[in-house]
Amino acid sequence: MSQPKRERERSVAALVAPDILELLETEPGSIAAETEEFHPADLADIAEALPRELVPRLLTALPSARAADVLEHLDDDLRAELLEEMDPERAAVFLALMTPDERADALEEMDEEVADEILEAIPEKERVETERLLQYEPETAGGLMTTEFVSVPENQTVEEALAAVRLIARAGRREAMNTLYAVDARGALRGVLSLRELLAAPEGSRIADLAWSEIVTVAPTADREEVAQLTSNYDLIAVPVVDAEHRILGVVTVDDVIDVIQEEQTEDAQKFGGLEALEEPYLQTSVLALLRKRSPWLLVLFVGQMFTAAAMGFFENEIAAAVVLSLFIPLVISSGGNSGSQATSLIIRAIALQELGARDWARVMRRELVIGLVLGLMLGGVGVLRVILWQWMGLYTFGDHYFLLAWTVGATVVGVVLFGTLTGAMLPFLLKRIGFDPASASAPLVATLVDVTGVVLYFTVALLLLRGTLL
Amino acid sequence: MSQPKRERERSVAALVAPDILELLETEPGSIAAETEEFHPADLADIAEALPRELVPRLLTALPSARAADVLEHLDDDLRAELLEEMDPERAAVFLALMTPDERADALEEMDEEVADEILEAIPEKERVETERLLQYEPETAGGLMTTEFVSVPENQTVEEALAAVRLIARAGRREAMNTLYAVDARGALRGVLSLRELLAAPEGSRIADLAWSEIVTVAPTADREEVAQLTSNYDLIAVPVVDAEHRILGVVTVDDVIDVIQEEQTEDAQKFGGLEALEEPYLQTSVLALLRKRSPWLLVLFVGQMFTAAAMGFFENEIAAAVVLSLFIPLVISSGGNSGSQATSLIIRAIALQELGARDWARVMRRELVIGLVLGLMLGGVGVLRVILWQWMGLYTFGDHYFLLAWTVGATVVGVVLFGTLTGAMLPFLLKRIGFDPASASAPLVATLVDVTGVVLYFTVALLLLRGTLL
Repeated sequence: MSQPKRERERSVAALVAPDILELLETEPGSIAAETEEFHPADLADIAEALPRELVPRLLTALPSARAADVLEHLDDDLRAELLEEMDPERAAVFLALMTPDERADALEEMDEEVADEILEAIPEKERVETERLLQYEPETAGGLMTTEFVSVPENQTVEEALAAVRLIARAGRREAMNTLYAVDARGALRGVLSLRELLAAPEGSRIADLAWSEIVTVAPTADREEVAQLTSNYDLIAVPVVDAEHRILGVVTVDDVIDVIQEEQTEDAQKFGGLEALEEPYLQTSVLALLRKRSPWLLVLFVGQMFTAAAMGFFENEIAAAVVLSLFIPLVISSGGNSGSQATSLIIRAIALQELGARDWARVMRRELVIGLVLGLMLGGVGVLRVILWQWMGLYTFGDHYFLLAWTVGATVVGVVLFGTLTGAMLPFLLKRIGFDPASASAPLVATLVDVTGVVLYFTVALLLLRGTLL
Repeated sequence: MSQPKRERERSVAALVAPDILELLETEPGSIAAETEEFHPADLADIAEALPRELVPRLLTALPSARAADVLEHLDDDLRAELLEEMDPERAAVFLALMTPDERADALEEMDEEVADEILEAIPEKERVETERLLQYEPETAGGLMTTEFVSVPENQTVEEALAAVRLIARAGRREAMNTLYAVDARGALRGVLSLRELLAAPEGSRIADLAWSEIVTVAPTADREEVAQLTSNYDLIAVPVVDAEHRILGVVTVDDVIDVIQEEQTEDAQKFGGLEALEEPYLQTSVLALLRKRSPWLLVLFVGQMFTAAAMGFFENEIAAAVVLSLFIPLVISSGGNSGSQATSLIIRAIALQELGARDWARVMRRELVIGLVLGLMLGGVGVLRVILWQWMGLYTFGDHYFLLAWTVGATVVGVVLFGTLTGAMLPFLLKRIGFDPASASAPLVATLVDVTGVVLYFTVALLLLRGTLL
């Protein structure tokens, strides 16, 4: 992947930050005008590049609505810190200017007592709205949704609806208003139409005649992944969240869905690497927190690997009798780990994208059986050749029975690759079945599981093939 | 992750497909009416669940515009096959009804000769548009963009622009029209405004006074990842694509960006698992294609692991003198692979999300040095305890020098974990530096690199600590 953009952007923020720094120290009054044309996301990047103690001064130098925009784009932790440090009255002013979903997210990240104090200082309408959003778990549709959406009574005419929309637009509400929700007298969602469809509608027609009846909705308790899946499946820019009576509670907008997709993917990638998912970006995670996320799995895997040592101990006499056998142990067992890692990464991702469901395990097993066997025969063949060629070319002396040794290595590799492939492919299904996250089937876990089996298989094959010769 | 939705959806498609199947055989004329309320994405799911030979019959049973909608949501390969089989005139009708970007994508997937024949049969306006889109590489902004967007002259008044937008909306163009692009007399992009802002604008004002001047644009040759990054950074629902003269060529819409994000992540996950990225979903990839994607890396890694065998051969005399040493080889080397896998997954993902740039390598190295050392000391300590406790508890007899053996294992684990962590963390930076994809630093590659070093380190430490005793 290429990342030209971010490189550029980082340097823009890095380039502009010193200028802003100078202005903050000499002419703070000119900052608002100087940065007027900046996108709030860029101003947030600049704020993050400034020395930490100057960020509050930057926010003070901006008009409140602008500062609230910058806060919306700021890193979660930094935002929580800044708001906690402020006078609660002032924090309340900024929060009231933020979109309802970002406001709730910001409060969620803060110390609870401080958050309560700030919430008290927020105007009643916004406070009630925020308290309603705060009752939902952050990882659900309710926790993601915003309450800024536009609903129109279905019995209105197009002109009435358009006039109402205009009024709302002029009132300066900020969330996207591209989709309108038609509701009946009880407030139940009856249809969805785009602003464009409203504009295209013949004059005098009623909303009920226009609004599409195919509506995709979610419950507020739905997992955020379900929301992401719907958005991606149906190419939506907003998903309405409805209660049991089909009354619309809010909407989840596509920008938040993109964040969800990226966060979920990051979690899966980190789990597959064999650690607990981080809550913050790498550089913002302390060394101590990184150790806490990484050490438990490493210890579990280390203890798991001790079974390999135990298995090897069981065959100590065979190793003593034929030391040459031990030379190929890492080669043999790693081939199982590698083929298992391939299969696991394929299956975990296919399950995450919902290309594979729990019921597809048997189909996957049949395919992977063939693939594991062919891959095993390929690698096993190379293994056999390696031993024979080295002996012939005089690169190494494996003794009189090098041919049998070659067959031992080759046969074991076939078995280990087949076993590794099947273990790697089936483990995610098994974990899902017993209620765990299939993404926990990490590459190191598969490798560790396969290593023990590899050792046992290797010496068993050796005992069968080499008895009476080397053993 | 939980996947309740897709489970449900799969069963809906599976449940409904037999009914559709029956209707296709008994009353094909009623299908259009029976499925009228279905979302095209759902109808596409149903089509995919039908026996392959019946899919063309389903398309025939639907009105053309509806069939075109279903084709837009269908799996790429199936769609290409269906269109190739059709009479070119008929395929041209469907293609002309599709959005320009989907039309170009569909032609891109087809056999070139058939595609040319179909293109000939498409009405001129749509054909020219499509040919323009086809000149861009599929993985660039130009390859992703649609040419259906609405631009308004900046010197128009709000009323004129609104009337023009209404006309376009009534003409039934289908792509999202939520964003309007203000252009000057030369056609250069001057500003962006939402339909909502147009509605909110005071009557009589001119577009030039409304349109924002902060415009985020990309070149048609920009990598699709850059488009995804801009969309996600600035919370956009469409990114305008402009030429060198800043004239707008098209827009990339957010639904395509979501697909890009998911595809890129799938590629990265598969590469990290140690295989070449697949072009199609797992179940649609043939066993032969899977073997082609998986065997090259497995062979490379297998050959790489042969160096471990060579390294072990170098120490054959030491193994023969102290067989007990060999028992801990898998344990010792795997601890390096596991800690390397953790570090690599963290760094690759942070680079993909552009949280880390090429210049951050030294900072990362300093952090990982501390982390690797602490993790190494933890695991090494457990390793020392393992040997000593097993000996004391009589679980295994390592001989008189078990204490020295314990220290050999412990010291090696510290070194191997530290080396594995640093290798895993630095490899993505190194790959990026020399022009490769940092995501190629797969878990198996890191493990293989670390294994050879682990073996050498283990026997070097053993020679230092056990000389005169075991060796």
